Amino acid sequence: MKNISESIRTDIEKIRNLAPLVHNITNYVVMNSTANALLSLGASPVMAHALEEVEEMTSIAGALVINIGTLSPGWVSAMHKAAEKASQLKKPIVLDPVGAGATGYRTSSVNELLEAAVPAVIRGNASEIIALAGMDNNTKGVDSTQSSEAAVDMARALSRRIGSVIVVSGAVDFIIRDAQSAKIFNGDPLMGKVTGMGCTATALIGAFLAVNPDPFNAAVNAMAVMGMAGEMAALGAEGPGTFQARFLDALYRLEEKDIRERIRVE
Amino acid sequence: MKNISESIRTDIEKIRNLAPLVHNITNYVVMNSTANALLSLGASPVMAHALEEVEEMTSIAGALVINIGTLSPGWVSAMHKAAEKASQLKKPIVLDPVGAGATGYRTSSVNELLEAAVPAVIRGNASEIIALAGMDNNTKGVDSTQSSEAAVDMARALSRRIGSVIVVSGAVDFIIRDAQSAKIFNGDPLMGKVTGMGCTATALIGAFLAVNPDPFNAAVNAMAVMGMAGEMAALGAEGPGTFQARFLDALYRLEEKDIRERIRVE
Amino acid sequence: MKNISESIRTDIEKIRNLAPLVHNITNYVVMNSTANALLSLGASPVMAHALEEVEEMTSIAGALVINIGTLSPGWVSAMHKAAEKASQLKKPIVLDPVGAGATGYRTSSVNELLEAAVPAVIRGNASEIIALAGMDNNTKGVDSTQSSEAAVDMARALSRRIGSVIVVSGAVDFIIRDAQSAKIFNGDPLMGKVTGMGCTATALIGAFLAVNPDPFNAAVNAMAVMGMAGEMAALGAEGPGTFQARFLDALYRLEEKDIRERIRVE
Repeated sequence: MKNISESIRTDIEKIRNLAPLVHNITNYVVMNSTANALLSLGASPVMAHALEEVEEMTSIAGALVINIGTLSPGWVSAMHKAAEKASQLKKPIVLDPVGAGATGYRTSSVNELLEAAVPAVIRGNASEIIALAGMDNNTKGVDSTQSSEAAVDMARALSRRIGSVIVVSGAVDFIIRDAQSAKIFNGDPLMGKVTGMGCTATALIGAFLAVNPDPFNAAVNAMAVMGMAGEMAALGAEGPGTFQARFLDALYRLEEKDIRERIRVE
Repeated sequence: MKNISESIRTDIEKIRNLAPLVHNITNYVVMNSTANALLSLGASPVMAHALEEVEEMTSIAGALVINIGTLSPGWVSAMHKAAEKASQLKKPIVLDPVGAGATGYRTSSVNELLEAAVPAVIRGNASEIIALAGMDNNTKGVDSTQSSEAAVDMARALSRRIGSVIVVSGAVDFIIRDAQSAKIFNGDPLMGKVTGMGCTATALIGAFLAVNPDPFNAAVNAMAVMGMAGEMAALGAEGPGTFQARFLDALYRLEEKDIRERIRVE
Repeated sequence: MKNISESIRTDIEKIRNLAPLVHNITNYVVMNSTANALLSLGASPVMAHALEEVEEMTSIAGALVINIGTLSPGWVSAMHKAAEKASQLKKPIVLDPVGAGATGYRTSSVNELLEAAVPAVIRGNASEIIALAGMDNNTKGVDSTQSSEAAVDMARALSRRIGSVIVVSGAVDFIIRDAQSAKIFNGDPLMGKVTGMGCTATALIGAFLAVNPDPFNAAVNAMAVMGMAGEMAALGAEGPGTFQARFLDALYRLEEKDIRERIRVE
């Protein structure tokens, strides 16, 4: 526990001091909220998707966040172009396969992206990870119909096949890389009542990847910070609306003492 | 009154228990806020607009929300495709003709959509409904320049012509279907100071359509819930910003007692 | 000071009474927050970017806001079309060159826009203004790496060359037109932790341009209102999340007394 607390503290300090640029090619629904979460954490977000500039933007960024939440062909092309540039420059990529399994277009777009570049981290809910692992599945839109536990074995197989760290997020978050795994128990049920909290987790993983060279640790630290900020936000929130504002406040205020008192990782 | 309270309570219970998937093809401005309103109410929102997937998404959804707030030709094509699929599968459609009357492109796009499929419900402000009814009108952007009362006769003519339930929203909301009509007096002036509250009403109608087979009742219930949540949010709000957060909280917390005490429908 | 307070008060009164339509062609990240800021101030925002309607929308608007934050070729074409129409009708334009200098595409797109029409006002951070002025510069994404002071001389040269009022915003805001200049000391550091506060400033300048025929005064008044509302929001805010809600509340509630007590312009 002590090591994780210390690792989180160090990463947050780096993010706050260095304000790493995180390049997001993400969905319309969450652009504002993930930009705000990155700013509240201390990072510097930029959203850019034009084919004319994505490579240049990825080149000056510390990490690339790809999120297919409102995908369309032009955007998928931009994701490919940016992902290839990131690969070439060895910049970490985090991929959010929003709604994989819900439509064939989502599943195939993600699979094509995985052929173009290997993300350092993939974060999805159980339904999405199961869909990526190639199993039969019925994703209901963008919300999971599966428990995280059900996805763990498939996440491990996926990690072994492609080499990425896989995060299966849910009431308990699982972080998986080959034989390695961690569970995070932090969080609050109100997080499921705010749109794009999963996308926010993915964006924060981007910020941690920009300062931490180990993608497994970066993913664990980011998911723990999400969960702890969610708990802090829930205190005194009267519902999903006030929770949202308080969540950004919590990311901004999170300090060593909060981490030490709250962290529940195994 | 008792019947309406009971009908609202039953619908909300169904939405909270079943979390119906509501497929939105909507505008960039409100995607985040309408997704959050649907989640706070208990529904499961998905935003998807790619031609490659709209039919598949509509097929798994309980209702389709079409909103032309930031329309462009590619999006209008997706709206047509999804609307035709919904018609074919007898899934309810709710249409929001944002800014109809303000530009010729908006008015003609809506008219073409109405030829492709008959929405269960159309919700607009007075200016928009008057424009749809084919009358001369000057909509100022997306805000109404007409009173709801002025639009009622035209809404009725429109309902008779195409068969949809028409909602004219404003300080008082009118719900019209052929000879039938209801007025809702709930609401608060602060609702006019938050962008996309009309779009949010439309999205919530989608959730009610997914659980209530009578589109007139679904529209009445949704508009009453909007108004009551608006009143609850205004209590203690210091302006449009805190109102917005409190509005989501109110949707999330709304219970039988609130409905019984607040409902003002005739 | 008295003159500025009085000028701000008069402009706000006009905005609240007339609710001028402000046509925004802006980025996906801030559409919701700038629409809400305009509404809280008292203006009537509309977002429209289709080539099929931008000219018509600009024709009925009191001002045009162009913001390249998530630009792509289709949107840049719409910006050109709207800007040319605004020029022709002598409607004021305010331009936000988000991320100019960060990629070649952004810098060249802005330069081409400046050839199509002369904005009444250009507002950017120091890095963006330096990039526009044609100097070597490294913008880090959309956040400035330069101090406002460093950009003042270049802003003046740019103003002389193209005739626009130039706003360099930062901890201190500089408003420059040829030999004329003003400094605004209002504001709060939390403003830098909320995405799109610069874009919001640009949108508010649009509202002031719609009621004030002098673009220098309009820009001074808008930037002072931003700063004062920021200070009011920071009182009692616990971080960037609660700040955001309170900022809209402050715009909505701002009154003569607040202006008199807070204004710090020279």
